[in-house]
Amino acid sequence: MNTLERLEQTIAARRAASPETSYVAKLNAKGLPKIAQKLGEEATEAVIAAVSGSNEELVGESADLLFHLLVLLDAKGVSLDHVLGELERREGLSGLEEKASRKE
Amino acid sequence: MNTLERLEQTIAARRAASPETSYVAKLNAKGLPKIAQKLGEEATEAVIAAVSGSNEELVGESADLLFHLLVLLDAKGVSLDHVLGELERREGLSGLEEKASRKE
Amino acid sequence: MNTLERLEQTIAARRAASPETSYVAKLNAKGLPKIAQKLGEEATEAVIAAVSGSNEELVGESADLLFHLLVLLDAKGVSLDHVLGELERREGLSGLEEKASRKE
Amino acid sequence: MNTLERLEQTIAARRAASPETSYVAKLNAKGLPKIAQKLGEEATEAVIAAVSGSNEELVGESADLLFHLLVLLDAKGVSLDHVLGELERREGLSGLEEKASRKE
Repeated sequence: MNTLERLEQTIAARRAASPETSYVAKLNAKGLPKIAQKLGEEATEAVIAAVSGSNEELVGESADLLFHLLVLLDAKGVSLDHVLGELERREGLSGLEEKASRKE
Repeated sequence: MNTLERLEQTIAARRAASPETSYVAKLNAKGLPKIAQKLGEEATEAVIAAVSGSNEELVGESADLLFHLLVLLDAKGVSLDHVLGELERREGLSGLEEKASRKE
Repeated sequence: MNTLERLEQTIAARRAASPETSYVAKLNAKGLPKIAQKLGEEATEAVIAAVSGSNEELVGESADLLFHLLVLLDAKGVSLDHVLGELERREGLSGLEEKASRKE
Repeated sequence: MNTLERLEQTIAARRAASPETSYVAKLNAKGLPKIAQKLGEEATEAVIAAVSGSNEELVGESADLLFHLLVLLDAKGVSLDHVLGELERREGLSGLEEKASRKE
């Protein structure tokens, strides 16, 4: 099992924990709009790190972004596998049709 | 090699392609601020899908978000492995210290 | 009537126009999530302009942001006056209590 | 002087205050990326309020968005008047050329 798969399992387990001891449980207790908001915030921070920060900052913000994406997917009952499957589907075997399948 | 690792390699290869045939090359030709902007846009779309769309829409927007995060990391010369290593580092082996290490 | 009030009236009038001739009507035809998405996009562009662009770019992106905020408020039936009233209410007469009334 | 003009003056005055008593001074002490990040956060909250919240929430988030846009413009030395002038310029007297001057 790779890092994101392990993290997905950890997040699912934490969701059921107490909001007083788990950040994931606390976010879920606040509701979906708050989780979505965190995703938006982390994306903004990644954008800022990318255009004006160091690579180390970008690494940290990208990790935050991935973490909160997994929390959001978990809260909606969507598996990471489903998302990766969609990426596989789009890219196809050769990637030859990348452009046609991608919106501009 | 898993999906994201394969996609990372594909994106690196496409970066050197012609902007006329590759979406990735085209984005890189437009410059880093444009790539960062795309990440922000896809995050907004994922947020909207999460709070008012279907799970299928969220899957699609999450795939777009991951794709553009990889394009951004590639453009900055940051490896996905570096980001996953940071996630591993934060979560630790037990996750017991999740809260302390995470900003509120 | 000041600039934003005039623009608010213009936007309300355009909403009823044909999507083929009016950008505002076209956005409304696409639905609220699309209008909200545009607001998010313009905010991301303003963020990028602020941290890595010129002041002239920030002026342009701020104008875009204000324009799309007015389109969003119009689509939801919320008046600019209502928003400005809220700003007035928060700031109070003296602003002495700014900090207490503002979330950190 | 209207609400936004007064708020612009208040913000400029607060910038020079102590970060311990003024939220505006505190944000400025944290630096431009932090101010830009706040703008992005408030935009995300406005987006979420628009697609899944009440009009009252949208009013509050729009007020937050305008407030932080003014803080950002102030921090960059850009006047609100400059932004409004750009809006005036784009809209022209008749608005007939809206579509041509606006990017799709």
